[in-house]
Amino acid sequence: MQAIAPIFYGACTFERVREQFGEERRYLIVCDSNTRNFCLPLFRGGATELPPVFETEAGEDFKSLATCEKLWTFALQQGFDRDSVWINLGGGMVSDLGGFAAACYKRGVAFVNVPTTLLACVDATVGAKTGVNLLSEKNMIGSFRAPEAIFMDTRYLESLPREEWLSGMAEVLKHGLIADAAYWEDCLAAKLSTLEMVRRSIDIKSAVVAADPLENGPRKILNFGHTVGHALEAAFVRAGTHVTHGACVAAGMWMESLAAEAFAGLSAAEGEAIRAGLSALFPALPVEQLSVAEVRSLMAGDKKNRGGEIRMSLPDRIGHCLFDIAVPAGALEEWLPIYTDTCQK
Amino acid sequence: MQAIAPIFYGACTFERVREQFGEERRYLIVCDSNTRNFCLPLFRGGATELPPVFETEAGEDFKSLATCEKLWTFALQQGFDRDSVWINLGGGMVSDLGGFAAACYKRGVAFVNVPTTLLACVDATVGAKTGVNLLSEKNMIGSFRAPEAIFMDTRYLESLPREEWLSGMAEVLKHGLIADAAYWEDCLAAKLSTLEMVRRSIDIKSAVVAADPLENGPRKILNFGHTVGHALEAAFVRAGTHVTHGACVAAGMWMESLAAEAFAGLSAAEGEAIRAGLSALFPALPVEQLSVAEVRSLMAGDKKNRGGEIRMSLPDRIGHCLFDIAVPAGALEEWLPIYTDTCQK
Repeated sequence: MQAIAPIFYGACTFERVREQFGEERRYLIVCDSNTRNFCLPLFRGGATELPPVFETEAGEDFKSLATCEKLWTFALQQGFDRDSVWINLGGGMVSDLGGFAAACYKRGVAFVNVPTTLLACVDATVGAKTGVNLLSEKNMIGSFRAPEAIFMDTRYLESLPREEWLSGMAEVLKHGLIADAAYWEDCLAAKLSTLEMVRRSIDIKSAVVAADPLENGPRKILNFGHTVGHALEAAFVRAGTHVTHGACVAAGMWMESLAAEAFAGLSAAEGEAIRAGLSALFPALPVEQLSVAEVRSLMAGDKKNRGGEIRMSLPDRIGHCLFDIAVPAGALEEWLPIYTDTCQK
Repeated sequence: MQAIAPIFYGACTFERVREQFGEERRYLIVCDSNTRNFCLPLFRGGATELPPVFETEAGEDFKSLATCEKLWTFALQQGFDRDSVWINLGGGMVSDLGGFAAACYKRGVAFVNVPTTLLACVDATVGAKTGVNLLSEKNMIGSFRAPEAIFMDTRYLESLPREEWLSGMAEVLKHGLIADAAYWEDCLAAKLSTLEMVRRSIDIKSAVVAADPLENGPRKILNFGHTVGHALEAAFVRAGTHVTHGACVAAGMWMESLAAEAFAGLSAAEGEAIRAGLSALFPALPVEQLSVAEVRSLMAGDKKNRGGEIRMSLPDRIGHCLFDIAVPAGALEEWLPIYTDTCQK
């Protein structure tokens, strides 16, 4: 299995993709209602006609088996065979869903990603993970399958709302925290262009994924902030409160920095610096809406756990991260009030 | 990706599986209503308790995304993590469905197959293909993923109905026709024990799969009889007529032997010998119930096609097979009446 896809930087339209993969292939575009409006016109470029477009409603609620079944049915009815190329034009929701659907359709057709959010550029489209949600739990059903290529065209990011921008910044900051202290500092100081951040984050993530494509070990450091973050995200979905993935990961890193001090040897000064950096950028989440017991139970269902115990990826210093650290689920009950007290002041 | 699983011959009970994979793993048994009744008691052996059992209704109609979703929900609610081992106790329907579900659950958990039909022993469980049906088309959604092990215990075959036995024999005969003329002769002459047939068929299939795990080329010879066979099978499902997979493959090989004479250089004498051998064992299928146009359209949707053209795997002599042979879909309209006239006399 190829875990790292080739990345093509620069302007990406349908013609560009077809140039890469050939006139004779059949193409299918997967997008959501947002990217159909804001990105498909740019993607069309000078083409007089586009291949068939499958449009899903936007949002995690639709990253589901039901949407996959609609996409598979659409593809089958349109007569797509194994030789086709599917183009995921969108954020992580579209590439996770479209990638999983492509990985399973007739046991696998080629797909490429054209990420249209900062989060997708730096995170979701790199690394061969695909998946859909089940019972409000994220990416429970999925596969390890890399796209044939990623087309990285930052023009698609220009219309991003601030909230979506921040969602990507959480992963950017995570990359600094787990692997590159100078990058963390540069990002906090807002010294870098979008393209520079995309390149540096991708370099970090690619190196981690290449070393451990199937997440047997060191790749797990990419999960820093995600044990708590995913549980918060699922709990907010159940509560019907809209929050972004990155906002939850930022809150997750905030709380997991406390765990890192307690269980991974992170110094109190660096723990404080992490929390201050995150709080400067991210508004506090309304975690008081959530049931602590529910978040705790969601953490217990995390894919990274083994033998029923909670395992976290935690930095021992800024720029370096440990993994498989056992952490008692009960500790969450201490962190949530600290987060609320500190961030909502 | 590992395409060939280790095969353990001999008595297989739950204790045997647990001995192989460890006391500390969590196990889930997938079976259908038949294997629950006829095979689970043998599989229990001396164990005082069994792990959680997921039971699906039997039959191709239930080899569906809906059943997968039930299984995934069951596994999630039972708290199965990535370290678990799923045991598919059943025929090809159970191993295809359970294998696909395991391959996608939390992006992949280990699974083993305990085949309980001749067909599953010689075909479905060897070769890393999993999948479920969509819109009456077989295995449209699936993955390439090998079981961790196959436990080959022919005691499970002792209660097989004659019809199910024949269904496996079609694949056994196919192995002879595509790869080993002497084996074809021995099978027709009923010279071999069940265990001998299972071993020889597995050896043939394993060698073919090992040479081309992802079916880019030579593995396609395993599809002899299946272009027509799968289309017949899907059409009979739509018509509500019960027929087995093997009976359809036998009829498929019968008709494709005509294609082999026309497009692959098979001699008329060997074509005749193939059809006579198949007719001696397999009762004629009621193909007059089917619409020729529908069977033709189902053939056109076959996964092996490329660029909209029908491609078949066809023997050029008994014991050797070519693949990717272009065949006009219209030829079906000649073969069906020949089959009906010859076999229903």
